[in-house]
Amino acid sequence: MVSIADVAKKAHVSKMTVSRVLNHPEQVSTEISDTVQRAINELGYVQQRAGRALATSRTYTIAFVMLDEVSNVDPYFGQLITYVSDFLYQEGYNLELHRSLDDHFHDIDGILVSGARATDKAKLNALTFPIVAYGNQSEFASVDVDNKLGTMLAKQHLIMCGYQHLIYLGIDLNEQFVVERLNGFKAIETPDYMTETIYQLPNSDKEARQLFNSITLPPLTGVVAASDRLALGTLYSCYDKRLAVPNDVGIVGFDGIFINHLSPLDLTTIGQPLQKIAQKMVQTLLSAISSNHQNIRQSVIPPTLLQGETTTKLAD
Amino acid sequence: MVSIADVAKKAHVSKMTVSRVLNHPEQVSTEISDTVQRAINELGYVQQRAGRALATSRTYTIAFVMLDEVSNVDPYFGQLITYVSDFLYQEGYNLELHRSLDDHFHDIDGILVSGARATDKAKLNALTFPIVAYGNQSEFASVDVDNKLGTMLAKQHLIMCGYQHLIYLGIDLNEQFVVERLNGFKAIETPDYMTETIYQLPNSDKEARQLFNSITLPPLTGVVAASDRLALGTLYSCYDKRLAVPNDVGIVGFDGIFINHLSPLDLTTIGQPLQKIAQKMVQTLLSAISSNHQNIRQSVIPPTLLQGETTTKLAD
Repeated sequence: MVSIADVAKKAHVSKMTVSRVLNHPEQVSTEISDTVQRAINELGYVQQRAGRALATSRTYTIAFVMLDEVSNVDPYFGQLITYVSDFLYQEGYNLELHRSLDDHFHDIDGILVSGARATDKAKLNALTFPIVAYGNQSEFASVDVDNKLGTMLAKQHLIMCGYQHLIYLGIDLNEQFVVERLNGFKAIETPDYMTETIYQLPNSDKEARQLFNSITLPPLTGVVAASDRLALGTLYSCYDKRLAVPNDVGIVGFDGIFINHLSPLDLTTIGQPLQKIAQKMVQTLLSAISSNHQNIRQSVIPPTLLQGETTTKLAD
Repeated sequence: MVSIADVAKKAHVSKMTVSRVLNHPEQVSTEISDTVQRAINELGYVQQRAGRALATSRTYTIAFVMLDEVSNVDPYFGQLITYVSDFLYQEGYNLELHRSLDDHFHDIDGILVSGARATDKAKLNALTFPIVAYGNQSEFASVDVDNKLGTMLAKQHLIMCGYQHLIYLGIDLNEQFVVERLNGFKAIETPDYMTETIYQLPNSDKEARQLFNSITLPPLTGVVAASDRLALGTLYSCYDKRLAVPNDVGIVGFDGIFINHLSPLDLTTIGQPLQKIAQKMVQTLLSAISSNHQNIRQSVIPPTLLQGETTTKLAD
């Protein structure tokens, strides 16, 4: 069956414009109306009664509410919102950017939210639109990278490489993703002949560098860092102390967005599949909108280990 | 005089909602209509005939068209769009994100564009909305950092510090900002007792590192890099060659967004005043919209030198 999306594509206009030509022709220029009518005739589109009811109630606009401090999330935010925007546009939707849940939302069909904390729950609950969150949000539909699997991959990789003394460098925040990354590290058993130490500190390369400069690392130390910022600080400390990376110290970061390639050595890291995350967020939201039913489902997307220059298979 | 913006602020709704209550009350819930009417009564707002005409024709939505490859501009894009969104929201406008000039623009009052190249000129000219560009665009209103002044500041700083052998590390792109940065370096005369060399290469820390690893730097070399990525590669090369920064080699970057603080030494750099740029873009566009007249004016915002750890006043 020919859909409104097919007509929109053929006429090079948005679905909203097709919907207008059908339902509010007085709001559309003759030129656009003619183009759309031509596409309708060529494709043989037949307007469904139910389709029309839906079409008139849609705005084909999605609000993306970005709650994080941008300075904290800079590298991922630009990419995530771009992927989301591109996927939405393919589906005939526009993205409207918001920065606060206190905004007055109108003329939108649904909400994507990033950076929501436990304290935002009440405000999210008060909103009457379908919502999909980036990051684990137990009361709402959400999409996240599989954080636990990520640090499991990282630790397994260091063990396979032959590092003997494992360090987990975690983030001292009370957030779900932080807990899951720590749990992933713990979920891989440390062999008896190896040692294991856990540190937690603010997510800053300077803090990590200072910490490592203040402790003595035994040869063949392998560090799982909960972020690429922490991995970067670890690497800088190795330079400060003239320790060879990856031969003396191996480092695996987490995120794989931008920072890993700016580092003096490309970081081995756990890559967040932002494109897949964006696609899943859009799919989940649009399916909630079209079914008028919101599934409170947590989707997790598996990450991949990106081999860089900060780990290596050590000689036996 | 009480404005529609005052009413919107008092009622905690957008200007568009106030406009609706006044002009299309049937589209608004009783609750919101009551809140807005209360604010109108308390403030003594009197609707002007001209004001109403304007109000009904406005959508209070601005399209932000992001044409750059996000991987190239990552750190600045997230910040610029956030600042723009915040300033627009203060004025009662929403931001709609677009990624192509081929999109079908409707229900917007104006367009902000970033990353437009010479080849986009025809498409921009075909758009019937007021347009303000980020970056120098001679045929459209635009806002940019004063690129020339930036590299002038950088070179002057290196001379004042006491570096003797100056290197300009430019970007080999045929873009206006690249030309201006080079011109800024040339605009400060090099004292007779000093030497000066100019290189141009792709905007990548790896390229800069490779270049510097292949040449011999005399003591007291001062490098003006046309971007923080190039400055970072220069710094890495100094580590590779065990040259002391800032005592043997001084480095000044350009941009001051994110990368400068992730570096092993905080980069001395020319900071792009993104917040001021965003504010000027919004002001220029909204004034074009409200006056129905677009001034083709190029606004340049002066940058500031951010003192980091990669330059120092050398002993006499």
